[in-house]
Amino acid sequence: MSLTILKGTIVSAPALGQLDITEGGYLAAEDGRILGVYPVLPEQYAAAPVEDWGDALILPAFADCHLHAPQYPMLGTGMDLQLLEWLQAYTFPTEARFADTDYARSVYRKLAAELIENGTTRVCMFSSLHTDATWVLMEELERAGVTGYVGKVNMDRNGAPGVLEETTEGSMAETLRWLEGCGDFAHIRPILTPRFTPSCTDELMAFLGRLAAERDLPVQSHLSENQSEMAWVRQLHPDCEQYWETYAKYGLWTDRTLMAHCVWSDRRERTAMRRSGVTMVHCADSNQNVCSGVAPVRRALDEGIKVVLGSDIAGGDRLSMFDVTASAIRASKARHLMDHWDTPFLTVPEAWYLATSAATAFFGEPAGFAPGASLHAIVLEDGQLPQPHPLTAQERLERCVYRRQPDAVREVWSAGRRVLSRGRSRA
Amino acid sequence: MSLTILKGTIVSAPALGQLDITEGGYLAAEDGRILGVYPVLPEQYAAAPVEDWGDALILPAFADCHLHAPQYPMLGTGMDLQLLEWLQAYTFPTEARFADTDYARSVYRKLAAELIENGTTRVCMFSSLHTDATWVLMEELERAGVTGYVGKVNMDRNGAPGVLEETTEGSMAETLRWLEGCGDFAHIRPILTPRFTPSCTDELMAFLGRLAAERDLPVQSHLSENQSEMAWVRQLHPDCEQYWETYAKYGLWTDRTLMAHCVWSDRRERTAMRRSGVTMVHCADSNQNVCSGVAPVRRALDEGIKVVLGSDIAGGDRLSMFDVTASAIRASKARHLMDHWDTPFLTVPEAWYLATSAATAFFGEPAGFAPGASLHAIVLEDGQLPQPHPLTAQERLERCVYRRQPDAVREVWSAGRRVLSRGRSRA
Repeated sequence: MSLTILKGTIVSAPALGQLDITEGGYLAAEDGRILGVYPVLPEQYAAAPVEDWGDALILPAFADCHLHAPQYPMLGTGMDLQLLEWLQAYTFPTEARFADTDYARSVYRKLAAELIENGTTRVCMFSSLHTDATWVLMEELERAGVTGYVGKVNMDRNGAPGVLEETTEGSMAETLRWLEGCGDFAHIRPILTPRFTPSCTDELMAFLGRLAAERDLPVQSHLSENQSEMAWVRQLHPDCEQYWETYAKYGLWTDRTLMAHCVWSDRRERTAMRRSGVTMVHCADSNQNVCSGVAPVRRALDEGIKVVLGSDIAGGDRLSMFDVTASAIRASKARHLMDHWDTPFLTVPEAWYLATSAATAFFGEPAGFAPGASLHAIVLEDGQLPQPHPLTAQERLERCVYRRQPDAVREVWSAGRRVLSRGRSRA
Repeated sequence: MSLTILKGTIVSAPALGQLDITEGGYLAAEDGRILGVYPVLPEQYAAAPVEDWGDALILPAFADCHLHAPQYPMLGTGMDLQLLEWLQAYTFPTEARFADTDYARSVYRKLAAELIENGTTRVCMFSSLHTDATWVLMEELERAGVTGYVGKVNMDRNGAPGVLEETTEGSMAETLRWLEGCGDFAHIRPILTPRFTPSCTDELMAFLGRLAAERDLPVQSHLSENQSEMAWVRQLHPDCEQYWETYAKYGLWTDRTLMAHCVWSDRRERTAMRRSGVTMVHCADSNQNVCSGVAPVRRALDEGIKVVLGSDIAGGDRLSMFDVTASAIRASKARHLMDHWDTPFLTVPEAWYLATSAATAFFGEPAGFAPGASLHAIVLEDGQLPQPHPLTAQERLERCVYRRQPDAVREVWSAGRRVLSRGRSRA
């Protein structure tokens, strides 16, 4: 039996808009599973060593539910282009480089390290179409302590000819070969990843749908990001009234499906999401950078749809989920303005819930620091900044969301393991 | 004669949307004034020592034309509130602490250091109403190497009674006392700073207008940020059709006036800005955080209005002008969406021009690295990041705007002085 006891200002979001705050509290875990959060240490743990972080914040680690690993090298470039141009000019050539596993190794090692440094311990991630590089990605995430899902991308049409493309047969064969090699990872699992409807033939979509059912695999893709893309999907699938139906007709629309963006998902499409239990991944930076629009997040939440957040690098330009949380708030304020101040914006506790607890269900875990949950946590020291008055725990959380504090993250725990350890700051 | 020669990839924006790029170029300055940018070092400087930065970027330093120094301690808090609530709950109590000059010294020293670390060497800054703390601010900026304008705030009505307020007589007397103590600063000059129309009686406004004329002083204030504020101004000045007229009628609306926000400045108000040569300070983060709206920056530029950028901390939550540049682009993309994709968004070169060269005229200087300009420059090493292909200088600039690179700023030059020196990175 291995006991971990962290002492500090413990904050988590068990539900939308709700914060659990325990100042000077104890977060106890046994063999990597949370026992509970206690204002006073229970007697049975009295003999256990306590890692006392003073008044440092102890927060659930983040889940980034949509990002493209092979786009990491192009982060912050090409942002003056629109989606479809940007794919051709930047994205496809960049992803093509991942045919080289040495290049993949060097990039993915940096990416995995940067995720952990920023307290992101769970991901749902797109790789490129390359099987070998996808394994490299899974290895590097596993080594760094990132957990979650990674998908080899499927794209057998409308790629970049001669640069980034695969045949239908090749895509199917490589997907099977890739899945065979995914058995060895303790914390990283495969997720089926048709790039988006325009990238996949009907035959490939049908194959992936069958595979999802037969092997009980989750699915991730893109939905209703941009109006030109939606028009293109309508051309490709004249039998489908809406974009989501192009996934649904092949069995790719279930309660284990993540759909990124949903910027233009109207009430009918959102109803289909709710009924099937599909999760919407909101990627605020990306939607703004490539001028897609502002997703109807508040409406989706009000309607009972599952909503989580994604950095969507490199459409998004920020990997830190603190930044992504702030971006979701800003996007909701843009929505608030566009709706003539009618739609309430996301508050800090709400957006932070979306970045942390809202996602845990997809990973089969309870929200926040609930007993039984796997320990995913950040220890954060924010004492270096001037303050106008002694800040409350909620104000400190808000300041962490908005204000970058270099080296403030002192420890990161992922699936019960300490994966970053910087010790207490000296200042 | 003191010669400075910096070698690297020299990029500047001499005009809106235009980039001057000299790879492997030489930026030469004599006694702090720029001689020129040369692809080959002119013979007459052959004997001078060259500081060779390899392919590091050498960029003009930033100008932050609207920020509230005493709000620095509250950066990133209270963002779920709207403007007028936020002033009462956070801003006024925070500013009130600057009655204590020791507190002011400790906060302002950190602020000045953070400005320089982020390459901001020119500011137009609000202090609080406190004369002594304003001198402390000017001292700390001067010591750190920040140049520009600082204003003691005037606010003789609608403050926070018992917390932050001054009488009309007190405000006038303190303004005169403050100006007397501003003679000793080499690089920091006073600017008259009525907080905003609701904060100043007619008598005080008239006094400030006379002072501006008599002593040839510039003026900074706020304009048309928020619709409730505008309604309030209409109540207070029923004789004025528009907000700007409340400044104009007291001589506070000239070509040496900076007006922050202008979110709701319509064509008539913008025409008044253009005719009088008033400069609009766009503060994108702040406008979004407190849900004011999205300023019509593109229209203002098309109409020939002078537009510059401000971080507006702590309404804005980001001090780095790289971030502020990215925020201006994002805001313009929100505008683009709200205008049904009609209004072109700001490109990276355009927004970066607003953050650098556009502001130099207010400081009496030519744009970019023009001969005769005072040397304000950043040396930035961005070689630590993976890249998909050898990036062009313009792509590197774009990546700097979007992507935070800790410690990438290696040197900062301000008014000809080296004010930050980290040496070349070891990696």
